[in-house]
Amino acid sequence: MADLRAGATVLFVVFFIVLATAPLRTGLFWPEVFAAFLEAFFFIAVFFATPHLLKLRGERYGRHARLYRCDSAWRAGATHHRVPRRRPLRSALMAYKVVERRGELALRLPGCDRVILSSSFASTDWSIAMLVDFDSGYGQQPFHDLCADYPGPEAYDPHDFRVEWGPIFHRGRLDGSARVLVIGQDPAQHETIVRRILIGTAGRRTQGFLTKLGITQSYVMVNTFLYSVYGQSGGNKHKNEPGIVLYRNKWFKAVLGLGSIEAVVSLGSLADDAWHAWLMTADGAAYKALAYQHIPHPTWPESSAPDAATQAANTKVMLTKWNAALTALGPQIKHPDAAAALVPYGDAFKLSELVDIIAKDIPAGLPVWMRGDAPWATRQGADAAAKRRTIAITVPDGVIP
Amino acid sequence: MADLRAGATVLFVVFFIVLATAPLRTGLFWPEVFAAFLEAFFFIAVFFATPHLLKLRGERYGRHARLYRCDSAWRAGATHHRVPRRRPLRSALMAYKVVERRGELALRLPGCDRVILSSSFASTDWSIAMLVDFDSGYGQQPFHDLCADYPGPEAYDPHDFRVEWGPIFHRGRLDGSARVLVIGQDPAQHETIVRRILIGTAGRRTQGFLTKLGITQSYVMVNTFLYSVYGQSGGNKHKNEPGIVLYRNKWFKAVLGLGSIEAVVSLGSLADDAWHAWLMTADGAAYKALAYQHIPHPTWPESSAPDAATQAANTKVMLTKWNAALTALGPQIKHPDAAAALVPYGDAFKLSELVDIIAKDIPAGLPVWMRGDAPWATRQGADAAAKRRTIAITVPDGVIP
Repeated sequence: MADLRAGATVLFVVFFIVLATAPLRTGLFWPEVFAAFLEAFFFIAVFFATPHLLKLRGERYGRHARLYRCDSAWRAGATHHRVPRRRPLRSALMAYKVVERRGELALRLPGCDRVILSSSFASTDWSIAMLVDFDSGYGQQPFHDLCADYPGPEAYDPHDFRVEWGPIFHRGRLDGSARVLVIGQDPAQHETIVRRILIGTAGRRTQGFLTKLGITQSYVMVNTFLYSVYGQSGGNKHKNEPGIVLYRNKWFKAVLGLGSIEAVVSLGSLADDAWHAWLMTADGAAYKALAYQHIPHPTWPESSAPDAATQAANTKVMLTKWNAALTALGPQIKHPDAAAALVPYGDAFKLSELVDIIAKDIPAGLPVWMRGDAPWATRQGADAAAKRRTIAITVPDGVIP
Repeated sequence: MADLRAGATVLFVVFFIVLATAPLRTGLFWPEVFAAFLEAFFFIAVFFATPHLLKLRGERYGRHARLYRCDSAWRAGATHHRVPRRRPLRSALMAYKVVERRGELALRLPGCDRVILSSSFASTDWSIAMLVDFDSGYGQQPFHDLCADYPGPEAYDPHDFRVEWGPIFHRGRLDGSARVLVIGQDPAQHETIVRRILIGTAGRRTQGFLTKLGITQSYVMVNTFLYSVYGQSGGNKHKNEPGIVLYRNKWFKAVLGLGSIEAVVSLGSLADDAWHAWLMTADGAAYKALAYQHIPHPTWPESSAPDAATQAANTKVMLTKWNAALTALGPQIKHPDAAAALVPYGDAFKLSELVDIIAKDIPAGLPVWMRGDAPWATRQGADAAAKRRTIAITVPDGVIP
């Protein structure tokens, strides 16, 4: 019985036949009726609870789930999740799709990639666990050595860079599966905690940009600066510092050397400078022909606008440029993750155009909310000095029961 | 000229000969004397500055350093480091030892493993960079799968565990080089940020304990609980939860399966229970003969004492038990990292018995102060609920210039 719906429906029928025929049958024991009732109720409960559980589990604990003992799942559902009343139960059920995985029967749900039945539905021996993807780190060369030998304060002046928080190297694929190289600027507070770049607002906007190109995971991101820029002028002031440029070029060389990159996107003018500095090197010259677009930095509207009106106007300006870049890059990407017809941006970001960071991009064990839209890290302090020293992390609403 | 001292000494001599003989020589240009003076001063400056720079660099930015253009190093020295006046310059110089690395000349300093000259001293083309070791993550099996499929709230009741911060798996060697398995209890706030266990006070005391056994890096640590215990009773209440025990045993199996472990130490009674639960399994039975000691948890004195006096007394009690464990385990460890005669603890911890977490144990790019003695992470909030949601990180004093 692969399908929950089918399973429970059969039980419904059995249950009603038992009850309906009870009086007609001779030598019937009432306890037997009672038992049949309990048994049926048990499965009905699961039948109604499961889709919610799994959908939410999918949202909250990564995109995979496996089915466990339904009593504990039931408890979990009751205690840890707010079941969204808006979504009609039936539609969730209709979305079931049976798939096969390691010989196990599996059901696909919206918002939850896959539900695996460890054993047949009839058995009570199932359970829920997460199969969460993660970035397994910098074990492979040349990246291991790049992360062991990086410039410090002698190249990044501590008056203009937050060297005290340590370097933050990259985000995305280092295994030769990346098709797009994104060049960011510098890490902020969310990046400092996750230890991967482009995690916060800028990250989710970039993720949305790549999604429009059909690139959902085949990307790699490297920043112009290894450390967070402190103050306004810091970036421009040190953009030509040899220690900074030489090291960044080592990353470009390593990432492009894998030979899978089909297009490059730089976010903001410092990132644009970084790419051109690379093209001027002996190693970089070979990549002059690579498809390249320079687009405004994803948070430029905020950083450039004194008020909401200007910000909205700047967002429109930015998205127009982003659309042009999408049109130019689209045809260059020969191996997208999902062949998608280009849907250009409007005058402002739609919710669907802000995409969560994928689990695959962040280190093992980090909670799902660190990839989501709620801002959870802030620099705290009465003055600039205190702010520079302190980052406070707050778990978003609704995560803790 | 491999040795800075030798190099500079020679220059001293040259410089004085030039100056002394100046009047005697005919057709002498005073600019020439001036140039000689400048040149000598330049090298003398480096000669005096270098040991301080490197020693501090060693302390502040990992244990390795490479020499840069002395002007930038000099600047770095001036801006980023407080040069310790206490340490007589000469002793630092005497500690130089020439070593060879990838064909480069290198000097060994106290407090700074190695100083590498990219080119000969005479050249101005040298540079400073850190060679910092790090934990490259969970790329290897079976650990990759263990970090992708772990129990969630269905096993760890969110009312008793801080599941919202995500699981924290281990610390130490997963490559079969570990000789001692340490079983901890549950992660606290420092561990939550570093994403490795036993990082804070408990971690540094444990590190000291292992050091007394001659184990400086050949260890692996696994906790009783994957998530931070919330409230007092939580641990005891759920210690037999199948979802918790089964998963933990998978880690024991994986770690012990590498076949290098010679001794096991459990910190606290819950960890002791965890080990015995494992020994009762079919897989665990094979390890009954393994050298094992159960010692009080490193922070038991604090957690058990209402006042400083009791705390001191409890520390003494604990260290007595630790000494007994050391005596028992010492002979069992056949392959220590450093053969060391056992120096037992006194009535209280000496500073030298609190050992920093090694760079090799924490993820790439994390700053050195996260391994040090200054507490840098605190749970913040007016009430318990707020405290549970918030962790504030503050860079310790003296790190930011």
